[in-house]
Amino acid sequence: MPGRPFLQIPGPTLVPEMVMRAISQPLIDHRGPKFAALLREVLKGLRDVFQTKEGQIVLYPGSGTGAWEASIVNTLSPGDRVLGCVNGHFSALFCQTARAFGIEVDVIEAPYGVGIAADQVEERLHGDKGHKIKAVIVVHNETSTGVTSNVAAIRHGMDRIGHPALFVVDTVSSLGSIDFRFDEWKVDVALTGPQKGLMLPPGMAILAISEKALLASRAARCPRSFWDWTPVLERNSRGEFPYTPATALIFGLKESLSMLAEEGLAQVFWRHARLAEACRRAVRGMGLKLLPKNEQEYSNTVTAVCMSDGFDSDAFVAHAQKTLDLSLGIGLGKVKGKVFRIGHLGSLNELELLGSLAAVEMALKSFGIAVPMGAGLAAAESYLMEAPTHVAGA
Amino acid sequence: MPGRPFLQIPGPTLVPEMVMRAISQPLIDHRGPKFAALLREVLKGLRDVFQTKEGQIVLYPGSGTGAWEASIVNTLSPGDRVLGCVNGHFSALFCQTARAFGIEVDVIEAPYGVGIAADQVEERLHGDKGHKIKAVIVVHNETSTGVTSNVAAIRHGMDRIGHPALFVVDTVSSLGSIDFRFDEWKVDVALTGPQKGLMLPPGMAILAISEKALLASRAARCPRSFWDWTPVLERNSRGEFPYTPATALIFGLKESLSMLAEEGLAQVFWRHARLAEACRRAVRGMGLKLLPKNEQEYSNTVTAVCMSDGFDSDAFVAHAQKTLDLSLGIGLGKVKGKVFRIGHLGSLNELELLGSLAAVEMALKSFGIAVPMGAGLAAAESYLMEAPTHVAGA
Amino acid sequence: MPGRPFLQIPGPTLVPEMVMRAISQPLIDHRGPKFAALLREVLKGLRDVFQTKEGQIVLYPGSGTGAWEASIVNTLSPGDRVLGCVNGHFSALFCQTARAFGIEVDVIEAPYGVGIAADQVEERLHGDKGHKIKAVIVVHNETSTGVTSNVAAIRHGMDRIGHPALFVVDTVSSLGSIDFRFDEWKVDVALTGPQKGLMLPPGMAILAISEKALLASRAARCPRSFWDWTPVLERNSRGEFPYTPATALIFGLKESLSMLAEEGLAQVFWRHARLAEACRRAVRGMGLKLLPKNEQEYSNTVTAVCMSDGFDSDAFVAHAQKTLDLSLGIGLGKVKGKVFRIGHLGSLNELELLGSLAAVEMALKSFGIAVPMGAGLAAAESYLMEAPTHVAGA
Amino acid sequence: MPGRPFLQIPGPTLVPEMVMRAISQPLIDHRGPKFAALLREVLKGLRDVFQTKEGQIVLYPGSGTGAWEASIVNTLSPGDRVLGCVNGHFSALFCQTARAFGIEVDVIEAPYGVGIAADQVEERLHGDKGHKIKAVIVVHNETSTGVTSNVAAIRHGMDRIGHPALFVVDTVSSLGSIDFRFDEWKVDVALTGPQKGLMLPPGMAILAISEKALLASRAARCPRSFWDWTPVLERNSRGEFPYTPATALIFGLKESLSMLAEEGLAQVFWRHARLAEACRRAVRGMGLKLLPKNEQEYSNTVTAVCMSDGFDSDAFVAHAQKTLDLSLGIGLGKVKGKVFRIGHLGSLNELELLGSLAAVEMALKSFGIAVPMGAGLAAAESYLMEAPTHVAGA
Repeated sequence: MPGRPFLQIPGPTLVPEMVMRAISQPLIDHRGPKFAALLREVLKGLRDVFQTKEGQIVLYPGSGTGAWEASIVNTLSPGDRVLGCVNGHFSALFCQTARAFGIEVDVIEAPYGVGIAADQVEERLHGDKGHKIKAVIVVHNETSTGVTSNVAAIRHGMDRIGHPALFVVDTVSSLGSIDFRFDEWKVDVALTGPQKGLMLPPGMAILAISEKALLASRAARCPRSFWDWTPVLERNSRGEFPYTPATALIFGLKESLSMLAEEGLAQVFWRHARLAEACRRAVRGMGLKLLPKNEQEYSNTVTAVCMSDGFDSDAFVAHAQKTLDLSLGIGLGKVKGKVFRIGHLGSLNELELLGSLAAVEMALKSFGIAVPMGAGLAAAESYLMEAPTHVAGA
Repeated sequence: MPGRPFLQIPGPTLVPEMVMRAISQPLIDHRGPKFAALLREVLKGLRDVFQTKEGQIVLYPGSGTGAWEASIVNTLSPGDRVLGCVNGHFSALFCQTARAFGIEVDVIEAPYGVGIAADQVEERLHGDKGHKIKAVIVVHNETSTGVTSNVAAIRHGMDRIGHPALFVVDTVSSLGSIDFRFDEWKVDVALTGPQKGLMLPPGMAILAISEKALLASRAARCPRSFWDWTPVLERNSRGEFPYTPATALIFGLKESLSMLAEEGLAQVFWRHARLAEACRRAVRGMGLKLLPKNEQEYSNTVTAVCMSDGFDSDAFVAHAQKTLDLSLGIGLGKVKGKVFRIGHLGSLNELELLGSLAAVEMALKSFGIAVPMGAGLAAAESYLMEAPTHVAGA
Repeated sequence: MPGRPFLQIPGPTLVPEMVMRAISQPLIDHRGPKFAALLREVLKGLRDVFQTKEGQIVLYPGSGTGAWEASIVNTLSPGDRVLGCVNGHFSALFCQTARAFGIEVDVIEAPYGVGIAADQVEERLHGDKGHKIKAVIVVHNETSTGVTSNVAAIRHGMDRIGHPALFVVDTVSSLGSIDFRFDEWKVDVALTGPQKGLMLPPGMAILAISEKALLASRAARCPRSFWDWTPVLERNSRGEFPYTPATALIFGLKESLSMLAEEGLAQVFWRHARLAEACRRAVRGMGLKLLPKNEQEYSNTVTAVCMSDGFDSDAFVAHAQKTLDLSLGIGLGKVKGKVFRIGHLGSLNELELLGSLAAVEMALKSFGIAVPMGAGLAAAESYLMEAPTHVAGA
Repeated sequence: MPGRPFLQIPGPTLVPEMVMRAISQPLIDHRGPKFAALLREVLKGLRDVFQTKEGQIVLYPGSGTGAWEASIVNTLSPGDRVLGCVNGHFSALFCQTARAFGIEVDVIEAPYGVGIAADQVEERLHGDKGHKIKAVIVVHNETSTGVTSNVAAIRHGMDRIGHPALFVVDTVSSLGSIDFRFDEWKVDVALTGPQKGLMLPPGMAILAISEKALLASRAARCPRSFWDWTPVLERNSRGEFPYTPATALIFGLKESLSMLAEEGLAQVFWRHARLAEACRRAVRGMGLKLLPKNEQEYSNTVTAVCMSDGFDSDAFVAHAQKTLDLSLGIGLGKVKGKVFRIGHLGSLNELELLGSLAAVEMALKSFGIAVPMGAGLAAAESYLMEAPTHVAGA
């Protein structure tokens, strides 16, 4: 296909060419001095993106699902009880991972399209007088529904009642795109992957862990070897790894962290917010509805769009791919066939988004849905012209 | 700047990543057997793109302006007279190059925005009873005005009166994008660069030459050394060059020629025609006027747009660059400040074009020109949905 | 540092530029049709390299240590007993991984520098009348000692006494470099990483599994989620993954598999054997001793060299790195400080090896060890001139 | 072929991967502000490499032979007389270029293998009482013979007798590798290409010109258009070019200039000198003779080796290529078939050189020449161990 591909799935995102060029460097000895210096720099940069001074970073070759497992097996023991907050496909799978290791999961469930209610979490913890609940598990941004839960509010609730549970947050599709504050929100384990806001190819599991999580890991009795963070932390402190690290990705990570730092986190968040709002206005301009119910929970990295009645969203996604080489996200879990998703995260600019939205208009029309040509674009363009491109100070 | 750049100047165009990766290969000995095989393949592929069986290809490290010089010094002698067809900035410069070597240029001039009239050429040649005119020089696609002259018609005129002048055609912004037929139109020298339809970085001068041009070069007495095609042809026949060739670009050329072959020339031309028409409809939808006067001369690689009264096109181009990182072409020569140009050639697809057109709408509006948001896009999208994406058989 | 780096550690190896360019392609949707086709091709190519028609391939983002874990948790249950063959650092760690999941490991231990004796394995299994031993675990090529154990002989021993234990083989530093035959040797789980003979950057765990291993996994009760191969196999059959795969590495894998296929496995093994023998002769020419005791167990991917008395091999490795930018492998486990290792695997040719060996001579001399300049090189060159470059038929 | 290629021709040299990655960046508008900044930086860096404060730089897409032409047509008029110093293939061709433009060339000829004698130049100029000689043309480093002429001494000779001729020096295979001082030696035109010491792919002609050369260009009447430096200088001062520049190479040039600056010119020269001496000692250790006669004229970028009697050097070069994938330079001009050349310039390190020399030993032996294995290597290694790797202060 001529021209450049448009990959508007909610991750992996297209890797910026500067990052790809960094990845292409000749490999170096992962036991040598150059690697040690590289590792130090990357760990420092990740702490900045997690907004943590105290937290420690753990890197594995792996994936976001591997990061789920790492967060479980390092902090919990078989038979432990956790509070699992489920409001979509990925939060459900996260809880499933916990169960695979013998953890009992008390579930708080919110419908697809709605965030986790902080007061509900507070209430459940309030009822747990014996502090049997060892951890609260929540997904910051549900990639399957385009909903961002209020992690700060959940933290406040936990604080209010003084519950000692560990706070474990999946930031796979939020870190580096949506404001996430490890220290301020007193998160104990935050986990992510490289292929979203960090703008890398997939292939890593990334954790930030608190002192409290570290303490918990000493008592945790889930069997673990590969995911055991103790030797990683110990060897990392000497600039090494207990296994062969994904050197090429770490080269790329250094570059992508430096791009985020140069743009500035506040500006990165604002850019995502602005593009996301433009996308939502375009979708409404096309006459379609969003899956998320509450404006304050709209995700700034992915927009889940309800398919018109009588049309299958999976078929639509295949149609857009086939006719316009545009990759969109399908509906997952309970909204399979009913929702398609537009990813707008990572290294993305206005022109790329507008080209994608124009293609969505065209693909909908040719799929048989009555969409007024240009209406979505007009809405997006108008918003983009009003909304400043930069946050104050950036 | 986050995201990918949009380079909608009428060349250089963005290099497809497969071509860029071919360019990045380790250099090889330009006197070795691998190079000889590469050269043979590339010369064959270029003949296909020029649509010639009989013509020979000459490659130089250089540029399109170097190709002008090569076409002059190899075929003409100081004091020779040529008929120079001028309808824009680049055709004027081409004639200027001839004059630098002592060639007398009889000029046929057409206004900016109009193609060269074949009957005018015929008439002038008809008046040249003594066959003093040694060559007719014409630019197939005037990049400065977005006008494609009817080269076939000019050839027919020359044939009608049986004038023996060489037919020298600049195909810099047409080859590989707009139908050009070296053999059928009995062109003697066609010249181009790599950075337009051939989808490479700039850095080469490329010629296709007829048997008649070869004969002419034996008598031609312009001083020449670097541009002398005789040693190039002689060494090329042995798979070599008389100088160090631009090996990396030749690696890339092999890849881009194979991409063109795979898409098929007919489909490549149709893709350009379709995107060009979408662009023109968008421009009109925005309420702006095209510089070209005659529909049948509209260029399929570049659209020259008349700036609204009271606005400077150079300032607008700078504004689009600054606010949206969109690169457009400025007005050149007589239309400096009055025209901006949208390039739509090379490896380009619908989404890239639509993103660019949306940005043009936004940039015009924020520059102070009353443009209805989305109107241009609606026109482009509607056309793209009607017009088939592929030619029959492709 | 000017010039190209020499990375003569026993993996990761330098990635061929064609593979690196494949890796650099724009990411594609891992749920789309292009990915499905890519996956099918890669799984087929891996089966060829494992020399299996019946085995199934399982790919994870991860590392060789992750592959150990996958081989354990999918086939065994806590309390199971296995026979662990330990003859170096990595085989010891593999057994350690098993123990982390509650597996009891009966150990057969061979000294560093010696391979696993097939008759010892046979004897131990013979003693296990009740078939309590569920698996035999062996490392094909001990990267820490440069010793290749005779896997075929171990299989024959198992067959002779008809013991039903699973046969689990680590091929991390042998696959794609040293002859390994999954089907012929009736291996049940073979595991590897991408960064050695497969010539990729690190970041994956790769398994080949037999029907018998698949059956075992249904009964196995080790807790597992990320490493569970059941959903991988199930989704792979539809061209998908249950998690985000390491797409970029899979792009590269396609290329490296096609390079191996083009060279031909037999020729790849011979090239490694020839370069390895040249290396060993050079080492002896320098007056140094090999760690491996038995000629028929010499590894063709890594040569472990005994450091001269009174010198620390770690310091020597650091010295070679610092003075000549040559990366060598340090001594691991019981031979830490006593052995350095020269890796000669992956995409390597004679000139690279000879340059490295010359540097080893120089580094030894400047480190204070009396080495006759050129003596090692003479031995290597002489051998390389005698030994044919290609196997018959290649 | 597995492994990395060894390209030991005297240019083009292998491009460092950092430079290649810079070249692979997405193209930018050559009329935009980013390009202007890039151009300024590159022109500054080139001045540093030419060691000039006052000289101006002129860049063309082209080649070294194009740079010859540019130096002629900009400074001379048909009928002008120049003193052409010929001591090899390339200096002879340079003079041929001058003749193509009607320049009369008085030749000083030195045998292949000997440098230009400064006193001979002085004597000839001394005889030119009427100052008919407009320029002295000399090649700093004759790539065909591996001889470096003493440009400083020639300048001193010219100064001694106060001859006003322009001093035109070809630095194609010396700039960025062998000390060349534009200002100190009062050179008027120095010309080079990018594919040697500047470590880029071929495709440019690069000039440094003095105020005196600029003045001369106003009077020069050679016909010129593409090579005319006046519009280049005029447009460069505004950050532009009168033609489409080779943007990708200019991206690379920025990187290679910064690599040279980081290493430091003095260290770059020393590295070349040290590797060259190691190469010469190896050649003698193999029992072969150098073509250059005088030690003080030995080139530090290329070593021309006399082929053993009864053997054809072209056939040997083809043999080395075929059997070991080693690219060497053939004999050119009068020494065709009698000399092969080893290039050792650009981004090269000890291990690469040693690997190449080992391959030369092997190729000679298998070609039928009695060479003691390892002897050349021993000589090279011994020298490299004695000679410090860095100049004082670097």
